[in-house]
Amino acid sequence: MLRETTDPDGRTATAPTTGHTGGVTLINSFVVPVGREDAFQAKWTEASGYFRAQPGFLSLRLHRAVSPDAHYRFVNVARWDSLEAFQAAHATEEFRRVVGAPGWEEFPSSPSLYEVVVEHDAPQPSHA
Amino acid sequence: MLRETTDPDGRTATAPTTGHTGGVTLINSFVVPVGREDAFQAKWTEASGYFRAQPGFLSLRLHRAVSPDAHYRFVNVARWDSLEAFQAAHATEEFRRVVGAPGWEEFPSSPSLYEVVVEHDAPQPSHA
Repeated sequence: MLRETTDPDGRTATAPTTGHTGGVTLINSFVVPVGREDAFQAKWTEASGYFRAQPGFLSLRLHRAVSPDAHYRFVNVARWDSLEAFQAAHATEEFRRVVGAPGWEEFPSSPSLYEVVVEHDAPQPSHA
Repeated sequence: MLRETTDPDGRTATAPTTGHTGGVTLINSFVVPVGREDAFQAKWTEASGYFRAQPGFLSLRLHRAVSPDAHYRFVNVARWDSLEAFQAAHATEEFRRVVGAPGWEEFPSSPSLYEVVVEHDAPQPSHA
């Protein structure tokens, strides 16, 4: 079922108990009330500084909906070098402080963890 | 509300009626029954060939859940050069044929359209 939570304990994507090799991608979708976009983005930016500083962090893209009826108005797609690096970053005291900070209760999220199974890029246009 | 559909008419993310400048990113999440992953991926791969050939297509990443309780077990993240290119690719006869093909009714999807508002990459490790 769809897990959408404001509980700090639910702010981490569950992970397999058996070993996973290769990178992982967090896709974390947020419900944000209309008019609260700037407040959300400020809060998220604060938190993202923590993740960007952790070992094994590769990249993040914060997406904002242009679909008028999107349920999730913001989606973070973050790549990590390994499951272990992702888990370590989500197991610190500082992480608990970051996701437990006042203000997050306004923005329920639904985090899940993925691996990339197909990847295609359009050929770059030639500038010759 | 969360729109999740098997109706071919719902397989396209809604888009703003006013002009949007810059690229757009489709995030399309799929419900896939356990044991039907290979069938889904074969069907999706068939369809993705159509999109990859369209003008303005930039990239796609198909993600498969490693979270044991993920509601959406596959998520496609596809970047397009512009809203117009995205819309044109979703307005053809061939598109309707692709998403109306038998088999898709097994895999409800929830497509929404986004723009990237924050983008960070970890510094590349130095190999000096």
